Amino acid sequence: MNAIDSADTRTPAVTRHDRINLVPFVSVDHMMKLVHAVGIETFLAELAGEIEADFRRWELFDKTPRVAAHSPEGVIELMPTSDGTSYGFKYVNGHPKNTREGLQTVTAFGVLSDVDSGYPLLLSEMTILTALRTAATSALAARYLAPEGARTMALIGNGAQSEFQAMAFRRMLGIDRLRLYDIDHGATERCMANLAGRGFEITACTTPEEAVEGAEIVTTATADKQNATILTDNMIGSGQHINAVGGDCPGKTELHRDILMRSDIFVEYPPQTRIEGEIQQLEPDHPVTELWRVIAGTLPGRRDPRQITLFDSVGFATEDFSALRYVRDRAAATGLFQELDLLADPDDPRDLFGMLLRAAPKA
Amino acid sequence: MNAIDSADTRTPAVTRHDRINLVPFVSVDHMMKLVHAVGIETFLAELAGEIEADFRRWELFDKTPRVAAHSPEGVIELMPTSDGTSYGFKYVNGHPKNTREGLQTVTAFGVLSDVDSGYPLLLSEMTILTALRTAATSALAARYLAPEGARTMALIGNGAQSEFQAMAFRRMLGIDRLRLYDIDHGATERCMANLAGRGFEITACTTPEEAVEGAEIVTTATADKQNATILTDNMIGSGQHINAVGGDCPGKTELHRDILMRSDIFVEYPPQTRIEGEIQQLEPDHPVTELWRVIAGTLPGRRDPRQITLFDSVGFATEDFSALRYVRDRAAATGLFQELDLLADPDDPRDLFGMLLRAAPKA
Repeated sequence: MNAIDSADTRTPAVTRHDRINLVPFVSVDHMMKLVHAVGIETFLAELAGEIEADFRRWELFDKTPRVAAHSPEGVIELMPTSDGTSYGFKYVNGHPKNTREGLQTVTAFGVLSDVDSGYPLLLSEMTILTALRTAATSALAARYLAPEGARTMALIGNGAQSEFQAMAFRRMLGIDRLRLYDIDHGATERCMANLAGRGFEITACTTPEEAVEGAEIVTTATADKQNATILTDNMIGSGQHINAVGGDCPGKTELHRDILMRSDIFVEYPPQTRIEGEIQQLEPDHPVTELWRVIAGTLPGRRDPRQITLFDSVGFATEDFSALRYVRDRAAATGLFQELDLLADPDDPRDLFGMLLRAAPKA
Repeated sequence: MNAIDSADTRTPAVTRHDRINLVPFVSVDHMMKLVHAVGIETFLAELAGEIEADFRRWELFDKTPRVAAHSPEGVIELMPTSDGTSYGFKYVNGHPKNTREGLQTVTAFGVLSDVDSGYPLLLSEMTILTALRTAATSALAARYLAPEGARTMALIGNGAQSEFQAMAFRRMLGIDRLRLYDIDHGATERCMANLAGRGFEITACTTPEEAVEGAEIVTTATADKQNATILTDNMIGSGQHINAVGGDCPGKTELHRDILMRSDIFVEYPPQTRIEGEIQQLEPDHPVTELWRVIAGTLPGRRDPRQITLFDSVGFATEDFSALRYVRDRAAATGLFQELDLLADPDDPRDLFGMLLRAAPKA
């Protein structure tokens, strides 16, 4: 049995017990079709809604820092979580030098499974999906942390994540003025071209200092694996919200320590962020606020128009879980998936060997 | 681009840089074809050779106990490892009650990746492959531990793993007499039917006591998740080798503790086996020998014809890694794989958003 060749036209099979061995697969091509079928901005907003709903039931989740395999050139990580009903994990790599070889810095895929049987229910590309969920999470956090009425965002680092951030902040916060800076001006030009005609007034800046001028929100999304200082202390003034996306693994930070000392810091999952986020620069007991508590309404987000808020984003497994569930529902509704012959499923479950024997070529 | 529909006839692409976004996928169907193309016994023997070679370079590997998500009905586990050049992980579930619902107790799939770039190089079904590698590992261990000249094996538990064990022990140790026992006589009958004509003299037994009579090797491979006593102390005599396969997660054991106290115990990776294996019944400092040291020749295996040896097998990530590398090579050589459009790969790696925009349907 080979389910793939004629799979595209099939109706969703995820609930049909007799086909449980066939796992729905959302390829890169199907993911792009799905995003366009839904609409990029709507996709980001709906995805943020799922992430927000899962943050509200945070305490239900099995949480663990990601399982990382570090090498000189990068890291390969597995990020599992479960809400007791569904289980999800993401495979993701981070290899900054890949760009020089024409490869993606980050590629990812993920799996959603049924906890009760252990059977996978979805395999999905997650390179594009991770870009979308990272932006959706940033904008979600900013809804609770950014100053009211913010319209201008500095976007420092104009690589693969930048346009997703811009689109999410436009849809979810009404950001319509962008101030772009990248050490590579070509990246800024490409970002401008990609965002043309999408309702932004865009300024290309020649220094990071120029980029942050007048911006209520400052997003950093640079890719070099080093302890960099993209933002120095004098660049950040009272009332700004910093959305720090690029500092996301040990030895990779973007902000000067002094900024952290002046900010109220919000994080996803402290045990992971203390290893991977900007706060790896601080003492292990430096006070931080868990974002889920703000979203659940038990702790305040922004309290004061003069407060500097910092979302020290590293990406957490529950966000990928939310994204996988959202994609599974959307894929099932649109038929934008294929079926993979991934699971051996003999008629008699104890007769795996018999299934293998019966597949022998005729003599 | 959708690579799947016409993929079957393509030449292997795993080394072609321009197609690195397409990940070779070995489906259940392709795995069965591959096993038959190689031959079941040859596959088991070659796979054991790869596992043996990787045990010899054990110290090179990144090792970690598997990452388990437990639920009332079972467990979902991720088993990662790396030799610094390649990275592999397996997803595997264990749900004993699945059999009652017509599902597999264990299903699995795995991924092999390039450490230097983080890009996946292979996605493979591993339900069948896990059955093969478990049997290959058992027979490999028995080569070092079983009494010389052994010809008879008791096989207690005649479920999905049983025939694979029989075939591996036949090819690698010359076992040609089997004594079968299962609490479900239908399982024994099916096992006998599957092994008919494969060079065994088979005795169906009505008690476990009868099964172990005269057997130099006793293999236990039962599936119930409980602390069972498949073997009691009086059933095991001097000189026997016990290949304990079924006790492989917390709360699931097969042997009476007294047998363990009389045996020299060999394990794969002590930090994992002490949690999951038969030795979960013993003190955490009970002496055990790591199998890799025996294979590497730095510690003895069987020293004495009267010694009772026990391989407390739980399955370790390096065995899956060996299996994935073997399958990748065999799949590339035979063309028995498909290509999955799993990785987003824009022409300009920083232009993920542009790739998404260019995939928009024409207005």
